[in-house]
Amino acid sequence: MDKNVTLSLEEADLLSNDVLTSNGFSQEHAAAITRSVLTAQRDECHSHGLYRLIGCVQTARRGGVDPRAIPKVSDDAPGIVRVDAQRGCSLLSFEKGKPHLIEKAKHCGLAALAINNSFHFSALWSEVESLSEEGLVALAMTPSHAYVAPAGGTSPLFGTNPVAFSWPRPGGVPYTFDFATSVVARGEIELHKRAGKTLPEGWAIDRNGDPTIDAEAALSGALLTFGGYKGSALSTMIELLAGPLIGDLLGHETRAVDENGEGKPFHGELVLAFSPEVFLGKETEKHMHHAESLFEGVLSQGARLPSQRRHAARARSLADGIKIPESLYKELKLLI
Amino acid sequence: MDKNVTLSLEEADLLSNDVLTSNGFSQEHAAAITRSVLTAQRDECHSHGLYRLIGCVQTARRGGVDPRAIPKVSDDAPGIVRVDAQRGCSLLSFEKGKPHLIEKAKHCGLAALAINNSFHFSALWSEVESLSEEGLVALAMTPSHAYVAPAGGTSPLFGTNPVAFSWPRPGGVPYTFDFATSVVARGEIELHKRAGKTLPEGWAIDRNGDPTIDAEAALSGALLTFGGYKGSALSTMIELLAGPLIGDLLGHETRAVDENGEGKPFHGELVLAFSPEVFLGKETEKHMHHAESLFEGVLSQGARLPSQRRHAARARSLADGIKIPESLYKELKLLI
Repeated sequence: MDKNVTLSLEEADLLSNDVLTSNGFSQEHAAAITRSVLTAQRDECHSHGLYRLIGCVQTARRGGVDPRAIPKVSDDAPGIVRVDAQRGCSLLSFEKGKPHLIEKAKHCGLAALAINNSFHFSALWSEVESLSEEGLVALAMTPSHAYVAPAGGTSPLFGTNPVAFSWPRPGGVPYTFDFATSVVARGEIELHKRAGKTLPEGWAIDRNGDPTIDAEAALSGALLTFGGYKGSALSTMIELLAGPLIGDLLGHETRAVDENGEGKPFHGELVLAFSPEVFLGKETEKHMHHAESLFEGVLSQGARLPSQRRHAARARSLADGIKIPESLYKELKLLI
Repeated sequence: MDKNVTLSLEEADLLSNDVLTSNGFSQEHAAAITRSVLTAQRDECHSHGLYRLIGCVQTARRGGVDPRAIPKVSDDAPGIVRVDAQRGCSLLSFEKGKPHLIEKAKHCGLAALAINNSFHFSALWSEVESLSEEGLVALAMTPSHAYVAPAGGTSPLFGTNPVAFSWPRPGGVPYTFDFATSVVARGEIELHKRAGKTLPEGWAIDRNGDPTIDAEAALSGALLTFGGYKGSALSTMIELLAGPLIGDLLGHETRAVDENGEGKPFHGELVLAFSPEVFLGKETEKHMHHAESLFEGVLSQGARLPSQRRHAARARSLADGIKIPESLYKELKLLI
């Protein structure tokens, strides 16, 4: 078994910034990426935590991302702020666009942040959750490499197309969810392959479009969407909104870009924000409390809210620091 | 077997208006309801077609809807138009709000129409499709009676919470989908009960919260959401956005209202509209064509687009008129 190393959040912050700046990332990019991976690591979402720095550095070394790109913010309409990431990482673009998104949502009632031309590897929940911490309701979506077949189809067309939603809760952490519209993450298939395990039925099809429980066959075939034709429709919506509507790529196009060997895909992201205060005026407090009855209804049945596990992990990390495998710690130190 | 009656669209229009106005609906309400049920009937969506007039009339006779309510439109923010249906049917409110929604979306880039305090029985797809016919991308959602348990839960909390999306296609009918976030419509369970058939696994739980394939037990228990915890999260989002965010009821509250015997629930509806022309400017045409490659990708795999069957039915109805069962025709005539 791999031993764990415990780091304080300050130590992890320094480590992450060192890894990134010593690999050519500007201080601004390094700080934005660090905030995202540490938020994930703090909540024990390991797959989007410090581990992701390895991929960032590899992609930068291969020229697949501009680590010093300067995001270009433009005010496109009363309800739209656009940030061209200029082939840099999406996270700094989100941070640059966020204050404008908030301002526009507070003026119009709702607003959109369109991020274009960005290297994207991060979880969406931390972005929408950060908007809810400012009192807004938020919805984010992005396409990704096309690994997923449409319902009734035979080959990859859609990205794993995640969607994340967050709702501010009076006096508490926001209600937040974030899920891929594929039935599972592609990484799950890889883990099954490595462990020599068969897949549950309904996860994937092989390269002929036939259902398969063989992980290898699934990797050269396609994942399926969650929830059959309904999930497939939802995935289509995400492709359209976070692709052509904002003038950016579809999932099957990002894959073609990657096959040229440049690394991770460049694509868009759409973030919508809604201001309860503009929608509800002086009734805001009443209806935010009213929404609590829905969460209470879930919990009183013994069901869970989607972010509960993450918030428990957060409390542990804030008290005791974060734990990462020693092998990962060593690998990160070697990148500096 | 029930014989069919064939009516021209004009004959069906007259019949519907006669049924409604002779039961106290104002001409404006009758015309709006007729447009909706005939759009559904034309596309052979029988469950939202002329058959629905029976429920409308029953509800009006029981005092469950104000058939002469005058919707109150208010301009709440640059991006928000609100229509208080004043306990009337939602459809006239949608029609009254729609021009303002379009105008606001064309100004801000995106906008919201909040309909409150409405009697709601109609399919959402015809509303979003009508917005796409005006060149907009649209997303609509509404809660309904709480028949659905959250993932991991044991009793009804969520409505069947449908969501509909539409995307304008250059030179063609819009791409449109509309689905309930319950695994099936409650009507499906009723049909299984009537036919004495067991349910597929995964549709429902009994009143103890245990999985059941017995239709009777399911009706006194709860439906499940589609797609497990992901569908449950999506259903939660719809409750929040089309409920508290617009100052209206949650699904479990609409049920309480109905149990007072007033008829159908009163609740809200949220419609979002996005203007591709504001998002894309002079690149609009290019990216709307770009989106077509996604639809072509679906069709070239032998998969279907969600609205294909409906559009084929529409062509038949426009050529040959609409067909309804003779028993329904007679029942409608008796209501006049």
